[in-house]
Amino acid sequence: MFNASDSRDLFSRFAGYTAASDLMKAGLYPYFLPLAGQEGATVRRSGRDLIMCGSNNYLGLTADPRVHAAARAALDRYGSSSTGSRFLNGNTDLHEELEAELADFLGKPAALVLSTGYQANLGALAGLLTPRDYAVVDRDAHASLVDGCRLSGAKVRRFAHNDAESLRRTLEQLPDDAARLVIVDGVYSMEGDICDLPAVTAVCAQYGARLLVDDAHGLGVLAGGRGTAAHFGLTDQVDLITVTFSKSLASLGGAVAGSEEAIHYLKHKARSLMFSASMTPASTAAALTALRILRAEPHLAHEVRAKADRVRRGLAEAGVGTGESSTPIIPVPVPDAVGTLAVWERLIRAGVYVNPVLPPAASPRLRTSYMATHTDDQLDRVVEVLAAEPELRLAADHVGTSVRVA
Amino acid sequence: MFNASDSRDLFSRFAGYTAASDLMKAGLYPYFLPLAGQEGATVRRSGRDLIMCGSNNYLGLTADPRVHAAARAALDRYGSSSTGSRFLNGNTDLHEELEAELADFLGKPAALVLSTGYQANLGALAGLLTPRDYAVVDRDAHASLVDGCRLSGAKVRRFAHNDAESLRRTLEQLPDDAARLVIVDGVYSMEGDICDLPAVTAVCAQYGARLLVDDAHGLGVLAGGRGTAAHFGLTDQVDLITVTFSKSLASLGGAVAGSEEAIHYLKHKARSLMFSASMTPASTAAALTALRILRAEPHLAHEVRAKADRVRRGLAEAGVGTGESSTPIIPVPVPDAVGTLAVWERLIRAGVYVNPVLPPAASPRLRTSYMATHTDDQLDRVVEVLAAEPELRLAADHVGTSVRVA
Repeated sequence: MFNASDSRDLFSRFAGYTAASDLMKAGLYPYFLPLAGQEGATVRRSGRDLIMCGSNNYLGLTADPRVHAAARAALDRYGSSSTGSRFLNGNTDLHEELEAELADFLGKPAALVLSTGYQANLGALAGLLTPRDYAVVDRDAHASLVDGCRLSGAKVRRFAHNDAESLRRTLEQLPDDAARLVIVDGVYSMEGDICDLPAVTAVCAQYGARLLVDDAHGLGVLAGGRGTAAHFGLTDQVDLITVTFSKSLASLGGAVAGSEEAIHYLKHKARSLMFSASMTPASTAAALTALRILRAEPHLAHEVRAKADRVRRGLAEAGVGTGESSTPIIPVPVPDAVGTLAVWERLIRAGVYVNPVLPPAASPRLRTSYMATHTDDQLDRVVEVLAAEPELRLAADHVGTSVRVA
Repeated sequence: MFNASDSRDLFSRFAGYTAASDLMKAGLYPYFLPLAGQEGATVRRSGRDLIMCGSNNYLGLTADPRVHAAARAALDRYGSSSTGSRFLNGNTDLHEELEAELADFLGKPAALVLSTGYQANLGALAGLLTPRDYAVVDRDAHASLVDGCRLSGAKVRRFAHNDAESLRRTLEQLPDDAARLVIVDGVYSMEGDICDLPAVTAVCAQYGARLLVDDAHGLGVLAGGRGTAAHFGLTDQVDLITVTFSKSLASLGGAVAGSEEAIHYLKHKARSLMFSASMTPASTAAALTALRILRAEPHLAHEVRAKADRVRRGLAEAGVGTGESSTPIIPVPVPDAVGTLAVWERLIRAGVYVNPVLPPAASPRLRTSYMATHTDDQLDRVVEVLAAEPELRLAADHVGTSVRVA
């Protein structure tokens, strides 16, 4: 039907895409590594245990027996799937309990639970914004926020990463009567730095902008787990908080929290909610139970930060750079992309799993991240393994110049 | 900070949205009904059991002990969440097994598993299409397909529902050298009718268009469960098949199946895959086990259609209309929106759960759907309850004039 050079053929573009197959041929393809099990802070891979330093399982709750018991009970009571949208036949009292307890924990009047964190951001943004509105987005904001803006059709303006003065200049240039939403992460996934929320909220107030904070990496970690807005005592200044359950809360799903009016509106406008099956009963129960554990044991949030501080100190003493991070995400810069993959491969052989990051996602680095359930012995071993790589000492000042996927 | 009439304030639009609160005040709000449990083909609601005729759980496998056992085993082995994208730390051998077995079942060389069916459609379309390309979409295609096209930035053209001649005219008008993808459902969610795939594939071949079929409602139901393409013996003529696991396969998640080249490309281009945590281990195991059951027991697919045929016959004898449906989805038209809600509310009181559908989603109707595990007694009771509603006999010829959400 087609020949390879037919411009009408959508599939003719596949032949031109060789980036991944080139890495495969070189034996340096680092993606889609199939893991065969997890236990505590280790994962199984080709019959060996690796210390997991590339997970977002900050509190280690994916292995918690209470979380597992709740998931099993929900499976028995409600079945393995809701098989429908919450809007129609897929809503349960469990989903509503999770919403109520999450809203309370975040200090907001209401919350709306969606099937993934990605869909929570799509739903919030495409539900709220129209093509007449302006979305003013931090340059390093998560891809799901960028996709949500794109889906909404809103006019998008980017500002320099975590730079309130750049945000101010951007807002100043918008038409006076245009509705505008400022969009930031609470904690940035690639740098591990915390949003300068005091400055951002001040600028938003000055220029009449509503503010959405994606706190995927702040929930469970900052302010006894309550996240970035609580960390700064600025919850009232943040209009919408989005979170994911696939990091600290040991599940899959996400939510938007805000005023009763905002949540009522989004319940009926968010297409990623209305046209997608709801979180499974087991995932809903897992997130709810993880939330209750976090609430009862806020020291878990302090522990994960203490573990990361131990690594940060160890790496600093060894002359390995860690950028601006003050959270459990610690980026370790590498001079170039090939070096990143070569170091990554040696780390796997040494028994340490980290995530390699290459341009255009960000400047070359190993993205390492830590869990409350890492032992000190495991962490000291990780520092030792990282410190043995000369490239990581050379590249100490490279992080902080990220170029994110647009 | 804002006053209610401030045009700059995004949140001022909430006050103008009263559609849902008007229904609530009238006691006729039919959405987000919280269910308290399920057992077989019934659900629990306010302490009473309702016969569930509004689920997509076609084969009844969400309550299957083998599915539950597999979900529990995966929970134990891999934890309650992968806490990461399959691209990075969230891939397991289970995800890859599911891909291999699903591809084989669908008759395609490869498949890619994503976290929801919604994200499978977004990933396939936004991963493949660019703003230079044309998406040619059936007017009744599922909302997730529409959102995927919108996210891709492709130029979108709609054609009349299930009308190959309208498709032909639409393709004829595209620039000769433009790449084009035709997008249809295998079975349409609101009408229950089957895509006229022989005519659609012939037109695609004639006009050099690639074809994507969303078989969310065909998988598990047609051709011993293999779906719409297999039903017509046209699997080779369909370039991409997308499916969801939240209907026949008793889980939450979705997949794209196609050539090795197409799937390799999408693995590295689909942002809804790369920037979202993967399906939970329990959901992955549930879908894999449901797939194996379906494969071993293809009579399940025949049973669900036989159950629906029994209802269709009963309704026809009672003079209640059921549109063009020949699948387990049976739309029952109602003359108007208020009548739809009034009938819906009486059905709930009579112990039958169905989904009310109002414009703009489609013309007013009760969307009823059936399961292989409904008993004949349950179905006869459903027919009796529906037949007792005079409006449903009046409206017998109303379905088939749907106006879908754009």
